[in-house]
Amino acid sequence: MELRTVEWKNDSVVMIDQTKLPNELVFVKYTDFNDVATAIRTLVVRGAPAIGVSGAFGMALAVLQSSSETLEGLLSDLKNAKKILFETRPTAVNLSWGLETIMKVAKQGKTVSEIRNTVIAKAKQMAEEDINTNKKIGKNGAELFQDDDTIMTHCNAGALATVGYGTALGVIRATKESGKNIKVIATETRPVQQGSRLTAFELKHDNIDVSLIPDTAVGYTMANGLVNGVVVGADRILQTGHVFNKIGTYQVATMAKQHNIPFYVAAPLSTFDLESRPEDVIIEQRKPSEVTGIGDKKTAPDGIDVINPAFDMTPPGLISGIITENGIAKPPYEDSIKKLFKAN
Amino acid sequence: MELRTVEWKNDSVVMIDQTKLPNELVFVKYTDFNDVATAIRTLVVRGAPAIGVSGAFGMALAVLQSSSETLEGLLSDLKNAKKILFETRPTAVNLSWGLETIMKVAKQGKTVSEIRNTVIAKAKQMAEEDINTNKKIGKNGAELFQDDDTIMTHCNAGALATVGYGTALGVIRATKESGKNIKVIATETRPVQQGSRLTAFELKHDNIDVSLIPDTAVGYTMANGLVNGVVVGADRILQTGHVFNKIGTYQVATMAKQHNIPFYVAAPLSTFDLESRPEDVIIEQRKPSEVTGIGDKKTAPDGIDVINPAFDMTPPGLISGIITENGIAKPPYEDSIKKLFKAN
Repeated sequence: MELRTVEWKNDSVVMIDQTKLPNELVFVKYTDFNDVATAIRTLVVRGAPAIGVSGAFGMALAVLQSSSETLEGLLSDLKNAKKILFETRPTAVNLSWGLETIMKVAKQGKTVSEIRNTVIAKAKQMAEEDINTNKKIGKNGAELFQDDDTIMTHCNAGALATVGYGTALGVIRATKESGKNIKVIATETRPVQQGSRLTAFELKHDNIDVSLIPDTAVGYTMANGLVNGVVVGADRILQTGHVFNKIGTYQVATMAKQHNIPFYVAAPLSTFDLESRPEDVIIEQRKPSEVTGIGDKKTAPDGIDVINPAFDMTPPGLISGIITENGIAKPPYEDSIKKLFKAN
Repeated sequence: MELRTVEWKNDSVVMIDQTKLPNELVFVKYTDFNDVATAIRTLVVRGAPAIGVSGAFGMALAVLQSSSETLEGLLSDLKNAKKILFETRPTAVNLSWGLETIMKVAKQGKTVSEIRNTVIAKAKQMAEEDINTNKKIGKNGAELFQDDDTIMTHCNAGALATVGYGTALGVIRATKESGKNIKVIATETRPVQQGSRLTAFELKHDNIDVSLIPDTAVGYTMANGLVNGVVVGADRILQTGHVFNKIGTYQVATMAKQHNIPFYVAAPLSTFDLESRPEDVIIEQRKPSEVTGIGDKKTAPDGIDVINPAFDMTPPGLISGIITENGIAKPPYEDSIKKLFKAN
């Protein structure tokens, strides 16, 4: 069974409850948009593309819930739902995008029943587009790896961060589907452990051979010839080829370079920010408690100072290629990234 | 108050209970060598130099506990104590060394009361020697750092791994004692978290400014100019200058090189293995449960494969100097390490 993080089924939204992972694979079903809002807020669903589509599905529930028989009444109900859904993760760009896209479609409707139909159709289409994009990324990336390769990945750029299939893990899935025998090494990815909790879980679920390492063992595994290539996702990619991604990506890329192991980034074109320069990007600091313990288990002294950046920056000189739905950009990136967008 | 990991006080052994760290600083007192054996087995005390001296102190308790009035009887009681103490951590080289050293002293005794006196005196002397060596290492290393430097360290090569003062953290203590204002960045050091549990604790205890980072943030802090130098301990150092130390050391050293940050190793001459070649050293794999969870908290799916090496190897090209009690070896190490031993 293919993992679908979020899905529209019989006028309801079905999600994997990611708070139960990696211990249990539990699906939850919502028919009230307020419950979708709670799910986003409590991290039942996470990952930028996944929450964007979840917001859209929340709006689709709202049109079904509305008892209004006038255009104005329905749009007013939708506006209310949008506000409640938006406030769950107000800084998430994809959530805002998902809600706005639906709102635009709704405003074009001529009748109440037309709006009901077009909003639901649009939300379902957004989910399908996410998966289609990931499958294209996967297909483009699959050619980069050989039979019997072991591929390292960091964090979770997988089915569980998207609607399904994933970006970096989409490349891994597509490589396997192309008939190549591959193994994966997943880093734990402290402090939030998306590698052990999510990547290890979803690859094991798909019967892909995966081994977990602590983040400290990246150098050891590469020095001992256990890694043939690396593929990771991205949170933001600049015109210059600088990649912002989960903290730790930069040192994985540096170790790969040191051992002549190709290092690839897999991400949709929507991840590119063609305006900003590297020095413009502000890296947020996350809360110290992520580093000073795990769950209820305290692992550091009280009141200790913590540096806990969410992301780091990998410079283009460490990146062998950037895999997108429109093809693979290779160095020099200023040129190759421009070409990808022209092909769009 | 200076941290003493293990100490002889009024015919008893006093230890810091490291299983209670970082939450509580609790001292335990033993008058029965069997309790010292249990303490070593249950990790109340850990760190190679610390358990070597703990074993010697256990033997000192055994001579006090023995009611035998004959040489043969006392030596037989000591032999029994040695066996029980040895079996607690049978692969620990320092434990075996500590027990053997005491046994040799005991065998030279002419009377029961002479043995009682010389064994206790020798054990106390071994503890003092450990601290003296660390203070010499510290003094030699302190000249390498400047006022207002921030020094990164990995794992715990501190007071809590030795009898007191520490090796890498001894260098940090001595730098501060020399009047320089310094800050420390401690890596968490997954999977066993000696950085957050022990290094952060003992530096905070000594009022040294310390910040904790996840192991994934080494590259970020260096790239952002937050680190002026690195100092770590060592488990084994070869004639060629190859250093075996806690997993993750190799990538810290690589990142330091990438940012032109000096990377130092601090260790006593007893850490050197002048016989082995790099390929002779076998790196043990530790149990998967260290990586799949923390305490009772499970953070990875059941049955996941794990690669969990205890150590990695840092090649001499990444090391700016090796700080010992006899001075600092600098590249080329084949020559400079030989000279340190000639000075002995």
